[in-house]
Amino acid sequence: MLVEFGRTRVLCAASVQEGVPRWRAGSGLGWVTAEYAMLPSSTNTRSARESVKGRIGGRTHEISRLVGRSLRACIDLAALGENTIALDCDVIQADGGTRTAAITGAYVALADAITWLSAAGRLTDPKPLSCSIAAVSVGVVDGRVRLDLPYEEDSRAEVDMNVVATDHGTLVEVQGTGEGATFTRSTMDKMIDFALAGCSELSRIQSEALAAPYPGELPGGAA
Amino acid sequence: MLVEFGRTRVLCAASVQEGVPRWRAGSGLGWVTAEYAMLPSSTNTRSARESVKGRIGGRTHEISRLVGRSLRACIDLAALGENTIALDCDVIQADGGTRTAAITGAYVALADAITWLSAAGRLTDPKPLSCSIAAVSVGVVDGRVRLDLPYEEDSRAEVDMNVVATDHGTLVEVQGTGEGATFTRSTMDKMIDFALAGCSELSRIQSEALAAPYPGELPGGAA
Amino acid sequence: MLVEFGRTRVLCAASVQEGVPRWRAGSGLGWVTAEYAMLPSSTNTRSARESVKGRIGGRTHEISRLVGRSLRACIDLAALGENTIALDCDVIQADGGTRTAAITGAYVALADAITWLSAAGRLTDPKPLSCSIAAVSVGVVDGRVRLDLPYEEDSRAEVDMNVVATDHGTLVEVQGTGEGATFTRSTMDKMIDFALAGCSELSRIQSEALAAPYPGELPGGAA
Amino acid sequence: MLVEFGRTRVLCAASVQEGVPRWRAGSGLGWVTAEYAMLPSSTNTRSARESVKGRIGGRTHEISRLVGRSLRACIDLAALGENTIALDCDVIQADGGTRTAAITGAYVALADAITWLSAAGRLTDPKPLSCSIAAVSVGVVDGRVRLDLPYEEDSRAEVDMNVVATDHGTLVEVQGTGEGATFTRSTMDKMIDFALAGCSELSRIQSEALAAPYPGELPGGAA
Amino acid sequence: MLVEFGRTRVLCAASVQEGVPRWRAGSGLGWVTAEYAMLPSSTNTRSARESVKGRIGGRTHEISRLVGRSLRACIDLAALGENTIALDCDVIQADGGTRTAAITGAYVALADAITWLSAAGRLTDPKPLSCSIAAVSVGVVDGRVRLDLPYEEDSRAEVDMNVVATDHGTLVEVQGTGEGATFTRSTMDKMIDFALAGCSELSRIQSEALAAPYPGELPGGAA
Amino acid sequence: MLVEFGRTRVLCAASVQEGVPRWRAGSGLGWVTAEYAMLPSSTNTRSARESVKGRIGGRTHEISRLVGRSLRACIDLAALGENTIALDCDVIQADGGTRTAAITGAYVALADAITWLSAAGRLTDPKPLSCSIAAVSVGVVDGRVRLDLPYEEDSRAEVDMNVVATDHGTLVEVQGTGEGATFTRSTMDKMIDFALAGCSELSRIQSEALAAPYPGELPGGAA
Repeated sequence: MLVEFGRTRVLCAASVQEGVPRWRAGSGLGWVTAEYAMLPSSTNTRSARESVKGRIGGRTHEISRLVGRSLRACIDLAALGENTIALDCDVIQADGGTRTAAITGAYVALADAITWLSAAGRLTDPKPLSCSIAAVSVGVVDGRVRLDLPYEEDSRAEVDMNVVATDHGTLVEVQGTGEGATFTRSTMDKMIDFALAGCSELSRIQSEALAAPYPGELPGGAA
Repeated sequence: MLVEFGRTRVLCAASVQEGVPRWRAGSGLGWVTAEYAMLPSSTNTRSARESVKGRIGGRTHEISRLVGRSLRACIDLAALGENTIALDCDVIQADGGTRTAAITGAYVALADAITWLSAAGRLTDPKPLSCSIAAVSVGVVDGRVRLDLPYEEDSRAEVDMNVVATDHGTLVEVQGTGEGATFTRSTMDKMIDFALAGCSELSRIQSEALAAPYPGELPGGAA
Repeated sequence: MLVEFGRTRVLCAASVQEGVPRWRAGSGLGWVTAEYAMLPSSTNTRSARESVKGRIGGRTHEISRLVGRSLRACIDLAALGENTIALDCDVIQADGGTRTAAITGAYVALADAITWLSAAGRLTDPKPLSCSIAAVSVGVVDGRVRLDLPYEEDSRAEVDMNVVATDHGTLVEVQGTGEGATFTRSTMDKMIDFALAGCSELSRIQSEALAAPYPGELPGGAA
Repeated sequence: MLVEFGRTRVLCAASVQEGVPRWRAGSGLGWVTAEYAMLPSSTNTRSARESVKGRIGGRTHEISRLVGRSLRACIDLAALGENTIALDCDVIQADGGTRTAAITGAYVALADAITWLSAAGRLTDPKPLSCSIAAVSVGVVDGRVRLDLPYEEDSRAEVDMNVVATDHGTLVEVQGTGEGATFTRSTMDKMIDFALAGCSELSRIQSEALAAPYPGELPGGAA
Repeated sequence: MLVEFGRTRVLCAASVQEGVPRWRAGSGLGWVTAEYAMLPSSTNTRSARESVKGRIGGRTHEISRLVGRSLRACIDLAALGENTIALDCDVIQADGGTRTAAITGAYVALADAITWLSAAGRLTDPKPLSCSIAAVSVGVVDGRVRLDLPYEEDSRAEVDMNVVATDHGTLVEVQGTGEGATFTRSTMDKMIDFALAGCSELSRIQSEALAAPYPGELPGGAA
Repeated sequence: MLVEFGRTRVLCAASVQEGVPRWRAGSGLGWVTAEYAMLPSSTNTRSARESVKGRIGGRTHEISRLVGRSLRACIDLAALGENTIALDCDVIQADGGTRTAAITGAYVALADAITWLSAAGRLTDPKPLSCSIAAVSVGVVDGRVRLDLPYEEDSRAEVDMNVVATDHGTLVEVQGTGEGATFTRSTMDKMIDFALAGCSELSRIQSEALAAPYPGELPGGAA
């Protein structure tokens, strides 16, 4: 599944694997994990391949953990039995907001996988998803709050916030950071307002995409 | 400098190094970076040493980046010239809230280093710190918002939030995450209220500690 | 650029970087290098990400070296000055023949990059490509020689050969291997015949693709 | 066993190990694997030790895989049961053609190991080797085809080909590459002719060596 | 447990872990292992963190092995059953003699752990320690033999020797090395005399510390 | 150069490299370093290749450091200018005492290299070696002190000591360790006596070997 937000394009795929990580074995529960990566050619200046460097960078680790944690908020892991769903989010083209695009696309890939597993009779509960998950980035540029900044604006944002929310309007994750600046409580409140409105719109589009025959359609014309 | 929050104890040290990372060379600006680590014996069950495993885990990377980013919010990096201050936060004993203890302690180590550099005439601006930085964790346990949870409560919190703030009451970083649950906008607002009050109290104690002769005193009797 | 051979899909991109590897510095010559990788979701059973494993596997190394060596056969490296063209070949979907698809696609990406560099006046010789490069795989299945086997047939081939050739009909690289079997001189001769015919057809399609406005078209409807 | 080709010297040893790699367990079949390495002092200019660099280079990986693959072509792996024969090829002195010397010597080490295992009653089939394996390099220097080039000539060869063949005259592996040049079909045919003649001569010498009491003698006076 | 020798401070901790290393499984015997490390801020000039470099340095490896080997000399490993005691020695402040301080402190941590295990009924022999272990460094500076040199003198010592001994006056380990110089047999004899006297004094203090209620006291006022 | 002590065989080679490690640059002094390694096939049971494991083991590190340190005791590093001599000691066959064989052989390789450098006029002092270096192992087996134990006896020795000495009878390094046992002062004295006698004999043989035309002869018939 390819998600596009403006010029950002992320390939999201879900794979079902037997078994769970060792620390979870014997619990009877499943697991959802995620790996995020950027192709070397996705950025304006080619970035070195992490497999060649021999180690995953801090930013990659951090986003992979965020994607996995966010998606685990919508699923009843007991329904999977001791199986793992691996979500791969590979950025083909990066222009700001790659982590939120990854989360939003990963939800659609996860929901597709769940539909397939359910049809195959491999779930103990046929509807283990309690809600849908979408994410947006919000920034403050030149003193104004803005949704989903492209890279050029993102890199000069004074505050940057990523918000993950459900289609019920509740929050899953909020990560706000001042970029060399601090921000007031009232700015924060305004950013959350924008973000919840953005996630609500994305939830609607995800729902339409998943209702479509196949392949699902996402904002920006993803297929 | 040893910081204690309840039973959590973190050793924080600042070292001044000539030069800056390569990508920053030639800018005329300094850099502040941080490394966070846990001693193997700091947890109830001994944790494997990351140097022996040959790689830094995702959580360690993530916290190291958070500490560095938070501390860079209070300092004018131009005043350092092309020099780096490395902040080392080593957890001696872990009982919840190690990352927020690390940030709060690292600020005191940073302020001490700045005082020393200023006295040595090695800063272009003798007062490069625009504010102080403190951090707390807030959680929701059994439906109630609580500050600075010990490990036993932290591990069953429904929502977990880390807030970094300045002594001016502005925000530097907000990271809130539902642990297998989601949270409402009003819960979030309440957690921010608690966190800002907690940071304000810590700022006061940091200020007293830095005014004390030496060594500075922090909450819980750290020395 | 996306190349498709049957159900195999490879994303090929060329990036220009200042400088050359250290062992080549001071020679006045440029360099062309390649990196090949498979996305975890490209295979039927998800394959582990090499960046996470912390090392590049032998097969990945071997193919990356093959792609780079093959493309260096068509270019006058002196024309680049001391600059490097990095070719990234990322397999999105794997169904046999990924290495030959990578070489064939990488040539088109390289030719595009050369056109761009030439137009920008950054080459000492405006036409440094002496020929075009294409590659095919040939196999023997059930005793019959066949071009470009899909995965299902490839995995039971008795002999597997990859041939890289120019549009002049000369050879750049021949790699033939018996899979648990050996092969006669006459089988080998027949495989080379098939391969040269296949490469000739690909050269024609590459040439049309590069003549097209943009984006170039490759066999199988790639874009 | 020490193999010498001209001034190239390679130490080849076979070790029998219980068990097979994990992906092969339960198949009832054995495995033959190989590791190739160069001692730091084997080259004119000392080369860095790969264990110290912490990773195997691409060339080492590629040759190790070639040696293993070539030797597996002559053996019925079912006869080993679930056991592994590890072939170690360590280059003591390098003067061109180290990979073909490694294959030719590894065959003798393998045949010795098989004789020992057979005598010890540890094989289900007492004669699991269906043929012998030898390898040569062929190059084109100054337009002329030549067998087994020493390093000084190898490094200026226009085409370089490694051929692995059996004592029945069939081919196991053909790897030909133009070094900054391409080559015609007729040159290729001529190189194969030379190579098959060379392998035939080596097979004869291997056979004599294995017939000798102990230790076996190889060309160049190896022991 | 914190050990102090002059300005050198080492944190020593013992952790009991179920199981033994794989090569020892099934023997019925336990294991004692040690890991030594220096905090980045323990030296005058900040030293890089080995977990970040991704590999343990030679010196760290060597000292970790020395500490483990020394402590295994005093214990009947059969009494532990197949369990491991891991000794962690983390240098908080380094001013010469960190390895001997680590051994001396690790013995007290080990003895404490044994007391606890014995009280918990988890040992097959309630008194598995046959002696106590202490260690000192001895050096020759300006031609004179001296005990426990601080860093400033240690770095200009002509000979450096580390001696590990028991409270019975027998030797466990002797490591003497000329630093860019050699030493005579009579100098060596004199250094051993000094070292045995120093170890004897340390054994007495360890014994008092272990007899004290809790926490044990070590030379220099450690707690 | 191949050294043989009983059935232990070690290949020792010296390589001259321009430059010194970074921490030594600008000092005007040279450097002598060593790397010790065991071939996989050198032991009875094949040992895994450290380059494949991706890290050097603790024992390898420790011995490499010992060899380098020992050889630096005999040379005036100023005479080399800022150049490095790398000593490679690769164990071909291991039967006890590999580290002492490595030191003894490395001295001969070093002396050969110095003769060559001196003849080439590349030394500021034509005779920079102040003494020769040899090493032996001494053990206590069944209560009796013995020189140079083969593996079978070494593995059941109660005490194991390695002694490095000069041809002047002075000591360079003494490493004695009780293997699960402790040893008395008088046993230690006796072991030193044996060791010094053994080193004296080796020094004589080294001297003869270096006087011989070429290649030098070492005990056991090494060439």
